[in-house]
Amino acid sequence: MSQKQIKLYYRNVLAEVIGDEHGIARTDFEALAAETTPLITWLNSERKAGRTPYRDLPFRTDISEDVKKLASEVKDDCDNLVVLGIGGSALGNIALQTSLNPYMYNIDAKQRPGPRLFVFDNVDPAQLSSFLNWLGDDNLKRTIFNVISKSGRTAETAGQFLIVRKMLLDRLGPKACKKQIIATTDERQGTLRTIVRKEGYRSLIVPDGVGGRFTVLSAVGLFSAAVCGIDIDSLLAGARDMDARVSSEDFRKNPAAINAAINYHFYTRGKKNSVIMPYCYALKDMADWYRQLWAESLGKSVDLDGNEVHIGPTPIKALGATDQHSQVQLYREGPNDKLFTFLLVENFGSDLVIGPAPDCAPELDYLAGKRIGALLNNEKLATEYALLHDKRPCLTVIFPQVNAYAVGQFICLFEVTTSLVGALFNINPYDQPAVELGKEATFALMGKPGRYKPDLTYDQFAHDIRSRTDIDPHFLV
Amino acid sequence: MSQKQIKLYYRNVLAEVIGDEHGIARTDFEALAAETTPLITWLNSERKAGRTPYRDLPFRTDISEDVKKLASEVKDDCDNLVVLGIGGSALGNIALQTSLNPYMYNIDAKQRPGPRLFVFDNVDPAQLSSFLNWLGDDNLKRTIFNVISKSGRTAETAGQFLIVRKMLLDRLGPKACKKQIIATTDERQGTLRTIVRKEGYRSLIVPDGVGGRFTVLSAVGLFSAAVCGIDIDSLLAGARDMDARVSSEDFRKNPAAINAAINYHFYTRGKKNSVIMPYCYALKDMADWYRQLWAESLGKSVDLDGNEVHIGPTPIKALGATDQHSQVQLYREGPNDKLFTFLLVENFGSDLVIGPAPDCAPELDYLAGKRIGALLNNEKLATEYALLHDKRPCLTVIFPQVNAYAVGQFICLFEVTTSLVGALFNINPYDQPAVELGKEATFALMGKPGRYKPDLTYDQFAHDIRSRTDIDPHFLV
Repeated sequence: MSQKQIKLYYRNVLAEVIGDEHGIARTDFEALAAETTPLITWLNSERKAGRTPYRDLPFRTDISEDVKKLASEVKDDCDNLVVLGIGGSALGNIALQTSLNPYMYNIDAKQRPGPRLFVFDNVDPAQLSSFLNWLGDDNLKRTIFNVISKSGRTAETAGQFLIVRKMLLDRLGPKACKKQIIATTDERQGTLRTIVRKEGYRSLIVPDGVGGRFTVLSAVGLFSAAVCGIDIDSLLAGARDMDARVSSEDFRKNPAAINAAINYHFYTRGKKNSVIMPYCYALKDMADWYRQLWAESLGKSVDLDGNEVHIGPTPIKALGATDQHSQVQLYREGPNDKLFTFLLVENFGSDLVIGPAPDCAPELDYLAGKRIGALLNNEKLATEYALLHDKRPCLTVIFPQVNAYAVGQFICLFEVTTSLVGALFNINPYDQPAVELGKEATFALMGKPGRYKPDLTYDQFAHDIRSRTDIDPHFLV
Repeated sequence: MSQKQIKLYYRNVLAEVIGDEHGIARTDFEALAAETTPLITWLNSERKAGRTPYRDLPFRTDISEDVKKLASEVKDDCDNLVVLGIGGSALGNIALQTSLNPYMYNIDAKQRPGPRLFVFDNVDPAQLSSFLNWLGDDNLKRTIFNVISKSGRTAETAGQFLIVRKMLLDRLGPKACKKQIIATTDERQGTLRTIVRKEGYRSLIVPDGVGGRFTVLSAVGLFSAAVCGIDIDSLLAGARDMDARVSSEDFRKNPAAINAAINYHFYTRGKKNSVIMPYCYALKDMADWYRQLWAESLGKSVDLDGNEVHIGPTPIKALGATDQHSQVQLYREGPNDKLFTFLLVENFGSDLVIGPAPDCAPELDYLAGKRIGALLNNEKLATEYALLHDKRPCLTVIFPQVNAYAVGQFICLFEVTTSLVGALFNINPYDQPAVELGKEATFALMGKPGRYKPDLTYDQFAHDIRSRTDIDPHFLV
């Protein structure tokens, strides 16, 4: 394992590269440094006061020891690990798996150091039926279900859990539930913790005070990773090493501060879309993790002073080189309303050499003998060059390699960047008040008894929702 | 197979639902109808004049017969079909497969009416190595490679092809190439057609005059679908039936015209982001197909009168219910700069019933006995209700079921919508001039001999690109 640092490269957002109209002038950069530096100090004090508990996760050896112990108990006992969760209880798990295990992991047993991994973060009947149809009794016996929910009341996860629990009871009996369901939930209270106690499941803890989107380095994300053979010690070491860098109160040495300042600058100058574009298939799902982190943390209607702001950059996922043939036409010629963040990998480990061209196609000779890793990285340079030509700002995060140490750094870098952008926006990046209305509306529509508000039963609320969303055939074409 | 029509529901973009500031007033709607109607007539005349050849694809029984014949030749001869292509030569293939075949298709032989399907639309060394490592000699012998490129000179596809060709030559000999490579390319000319003739591969045709993003209903998209057991006749029948609907010169009966007018309206009123959000896992990759169609067609710097416009909505992919726990916070509270298009499925076919809640968790009783398809569709209503509450415009495309007939309709609906939005924007939706610079830059960086321009060799061009993109360590943190 290389202990090399990931780096943020930011020259290509500057006016000296993309011009005064769209780039950051030197003086603006100085102003950003002056505005951001006190916020680094403030964030460090918040951390010391215990108000950013997500920062402590990489240092919590108690968590990683619990996770490793349970992972080693189940690892050889199962052929399949199924994660049931949604949002922050799934996106980090998926991102770690795709980043750090081979593409053919679920199909090729030789490339698989642990069980197959399936993460169900939806309630799609066709998708789940297809999976359950595959799980004959033999497969089912060798399957562990990790249900992840802080409260246990999230409708999607609860629904999945009740399907799985019934299937295990019906097909294998009550002992199977105890053996094959592992819950990751609140340490002390809530629906799922109550069930754990009553039914005797093994369990792990969702930490207190950490929003779902910041939990990937807790048992939430670490357990499936550890079971699937990912080196979680290295992941946490990477996060800790980045934690030191992003604590620096010297703006120019702090990659999170520079990243935050640049993102803040462009948002306030009308570039409200933030495209993350890994040139690496393995990092594509890390972009979905980032989408949640960014959108839920920074999309807010009200600032800390109570002003209505309706702020928040829109995170957009793209994949290089694939999306050059899909999105780059728009990225170059459409509105100049996007900041691009490329993820570049210096060393892909295994690489492939392009074979010779047939004699009849000498126009392909230039590819022969070249490595496709070089082709992919040249595609990134070519796209960046083309975007710079059209005055579009570009950041690059450089990964020496895609390994657990680098991914741990990346997670910490973007989490702390998020905190700092939140501070620059003067909003609370840790809540998600707008998710509640939809959750409550779902409860109402699913026939939950009781009251949504003191003066409104769920039944009345459901009636109101239907009256507003029922199809009016006059507008159906 | 149901022959039901998909429908567009558009009431929830109107001022009567989301208010005057953000919604479309009745008078605006009348104005949109008046502006769009002549463009329907014009597009119909363009079609008759042969200037929109993509419209003819669903009627080309010569193509579908060729495809079915070749598919039936190879279907039982192979365990794996590998598509090598990028952009329009991959996104449609992926979308058809995910939409119309089971989630566990590649893993569960019982759920698979054809070979496994792998689509490589990138040049990622780690991804491709993992796949090739899995392909031992036995697997390799039973693998068909479908290389798709109009010219054969696309760097990514050519690179993949030369790797596969060498592997087949080295491991199985020249006969294997002839037997196991199928090319989909220009009928008469170009690099790949020349190779086909010289090396004796079987081949299919990329139609003339149809941009890659409009080729899914040609041999490009149909071959892998047919081999994998998808009912391509039904797919084409769906497209033909929609073709009649979107040719109607009565605005109020034409779903493409209404869809186009609404998209145009919101773009011109500052809602420049277009979120497509299927409430259906199977349709998630259809959103990537749409992203290319939308971005490459509508992202243009210059209009037909030569004015610099830098126009183009940014297509954004989201997935319900998953992204409720990731993006909806932003969608509700962030800037009101998005138009939402939900895809809703009325009948999921197989559904799953949620089991009983444990006695200790009566708060979950409300879910017991409900179907998760109902839960998913209620989540859509709940999210739509919450978005409407915050005055965000919402369209819904209603799929009676996800089958080939419905997917064919959807493809035609969005292709023709694209043509009409292009006409409303007064831009050319069929070219992609901005993709060229990056392609040429890649050629230069990969050491292609010759000249990029009369006064600039590729070597000189590469030097220029590197001088502009080389890392300056002063800006690396």
